Amino acid sequence: MRDVLISNVRLPDGKAAAIEIRGGRIAAIHGVGASAAGVEAIDGGNALVLPGLVEAHTHLDKTLLGMPWYRNDVGPRLIDKIDNERLQKKKLGIDPQRQSSRQVVLSVSKGSTHIRSHVDVDTEGGLSAIEGVLATRERYRDICDLQIVAFPQSGLLVRKGTLELMEAAMRAGADVVGGLDPCAIDRDPRAHVDAVFALAQKSGKGVDIHLHEPGELGGFSMELIIERTRALGMQGKVVVSHAFCLGMPEAGYVAQLVDQLAETRIAIMTHGAPYRPVPNVKQLQAAGVTVCCGSDGIRDTWGPYGNADMLERAMIVGLRNNLRRDDEVELALDIVTHGGAKAMELEGYGLRPGAWGDLVLVDVETPAEAVAARPPRKLVLKRGRVVARDGKALVEAP
Amino acid sequence: MRDVLISNVRLPDGKAAAIEIRGGRIAAIHGVGASAAGVEAIDGGNALVLPGLVEAHTHLDKTLLGMPWYRNDVGPRLIDKIDNERLQKKKLGIDPQRQSSRQVVLSVSKGSTHIRSHVDVDTEGGLSAIEGVLATRERYRDICDLQIVAFPQSGLLVRKGTLELMEAAMRAGADVVGGLDPCAIDRDPRAHVDAVFALAQKSGKGVDIHLHEPGELGGFSMELIIERTRALGMQGKVVVSHAFCLGMPEAGYVAQLVDQLAETRIAIMTHGAPYRPVPNVKQLQAAGVTVCCGSDGIRDTWGPYGNADMLERAMIVGLRNNLRRDDEVELALDIVTHGGAKAMELEGYGLRPGAWGDLVLVDVETPAEAVAARPPRKLVLKRGRVVARDGKALVEAP
Repeated sequence: MRDVLISNVRLPDGKAAAIEIRGGRIAAIHGVGASAAGVEAIDGGNALVLPGLVEAHTHLDKTLLGMPWYRNDVGPRLIDKIDNERLQKKKLGIDPQRQSSRQVVLSVSKGSTHIRSHVDVDTEGGLSAIEGVLATRERYRDICDLQIVAFPQSGLLVRKGTLELMEAAMRAGADVVGGLDPCAIDRDPRAHVDAVFALAQKSGKGVDIHLHEPGELGGFSMELIIERTRALGMQGKVVVSHAFCLGMPEAGYVAQLVDQLAETRIAIMTHGAPYRPVPNVKQLQAAGVTVCCGSDGIRDTWGPYGNADMLERAMIVGLRNNLRRDDEVELALDIVTHGGAKAMELEGYGLRPGAWGDLVLVDVETPAEAVAARPPRKLVLKRGRVVARDGKALVEAP
Repeated sequence: MRDVLISNVRLPDGKAAAIEIRGGRIAAIHGVGASAAGVEAIDGGNALVLPGLVEAHTHLDKTLLGMPWYRNDVGPRLIDKIDNERLQKKKLGIDPQRQSSRQVVLSVSKGSTHIRSHVDVDTEGGLSAIEGVLATRERYRDICDLQIVAFPQSGLLVRKGTLELMEAAMRAGADVVGGLDPCAIDRDPRAHVDAVFALAQKSGKGVDIHLHEPGELGGFSMELIIERTRALGMQGKVVVSHAFCLGMPEAGYVAQLVDQLAETRIAIMTHGAPYRPVPNVKQLQAAGVTVCCGSDGIRDTWGPYGNADMLERAMIVGLRNNLRRDDEVELALDIVTHGGAKAMELEGYGLRPGAWGDLVLVDVETPAEAVAARPPRKLVLKRGRVVARDGKALVEAP
């Protein structure tokens, strides 16, 4: 880890600054004209500096990046997509290690310094996807931090043997226990939630549950999650991803759920799905609920969209939530930086002395412009090391 | 107008081709290995070729492109934004000619060969915005076709003198008569719709009405528009922009409106607003209603978003309508090409002999990938002339 001084940058509050990084961490944030002895000097070119972007929800193991175009003619139901994906994994040869590597390198080129990925665990693929992404995590450990969620995509209890594979995934090195639609997929919400939380307790890890269930059905599943979080003392260790149910019209019931999320410090991940009711990020923020954000799947058998750009994702969340004023757009930016860091319990995150030197430089006037304009990232640093420049990662993808 | 042969391109159906353009129009579409005498040869580099993109709804006169960042702290109501904009036009010095030029050049760099712009007409600015955009239309006539809609942004009848200015705008060279929320702004829907259609009849032009009114209120205004269109024989000459009311939950009433839109050949413009109920583009397509699409305002006092990229806009419409299958994503692409051309009644549009040589080349495998990946445009041609290359327009903006 080299020691560097990034001079001639502007902080989010507009102040000109120079950032000194020693031993991978921010040693000091100086005013204009600072110099530091014995460090490499990098001219920031008057760019805006932000803490590294946080991709808090994606599926590294199943992107089709770099593969021939996949013509999608899948049926409309959730189960059509899940079944088709298992089929295509074999048919197309979607290699989890190769594909996750490609997406990590793309993410780094866009300024993400931390990624949380759900990784499939099922009775057909076994632990192969987990092992592939573990190898990727190791390979790119100096350019990006990866968190792996063991994710029972095809169901946890409906497919016998999956729970044992989930346990093995946690032993193999997964960081978080995943779950999926306790009612809609496993058809037994109490048993699903109990199993997920029991495994989390056993492995001493947190929980991150996909909850697509809409309206009152999703609300019920969320109540179960809240109850377990409270009963097991897992406050601050649980994320509910998507949480479409918080977009239901019943304002009073939603407000009551939101209050309980704040009390139990359960974070909400939204990717701003424009075609579903979604959680209102301003409401969550006002109630003190941590909000994070992710690309979800990128160019996979589910759909063709996505490019791993968390500034573009902030724009999509901004459009979805009608965030127009600068203070509102800054909330979208907060979600893809500090919100993600908090939900992922990152140590040493931020633009402050003592935090890791994970930075992204963007050629814009203001934080809101970063979200609206999304220019190629000028410079990306991971623990003080330059890992991308002018929109291109400095490491190779397979 | 030079004669050119664009060789080595792929048509949307995947076939390799060479496109011969003479006198600005497509003379022939050849198979592989074709040559043509006496024409300039351009290698398409195996790119996908699409007809020029159509920006069917924007506001060229009020973008802040190229100006210092505008910090938005405007109130939440529609009228707050309208009033603030009139104030800022003077305060910031938003010059309609300069600003519309900047946006036209940006649009061309993104592959748009046709733009329909609503342009403000009100008692404060008078015809200054119309005159500015008319000058821009003339200046860039060889690189992009502009249609100007005279747009009573601050109300048509509530502000005395506006109707006379609208008449003057049509005499000065505007192409289409605009309107705005007959109930919500003018508070007299019958009088508003009558005035708009009377002016259209008088000037022999079409109509394009902004209709933000939601639910049954918007449905009522839409009924009035349908009735006038039918009564005056203006089938195929009317566009309703936004039409958020078509996103209301009452499926039966919406279906009845949609049938009438098809019968009267009224086109619907959607920009895929993710924060409002919106028309369902698959429903409209199935009913035979023409659908077009636009950026709406780009980086203006209303909001910071937008970059004039109609492929990105197709993606936003695709995300909003949950278009995932390739045939669905191709619908989004159709909306920003042929749908726009039909709504704008463009002569000679398309990839066929006899049509104008308005083309955009994109480095992707398939039409759906053009929408999902949105790479910088490789080449943009207007009537056979190269006007942009590798994402950069070949003309200067002021």
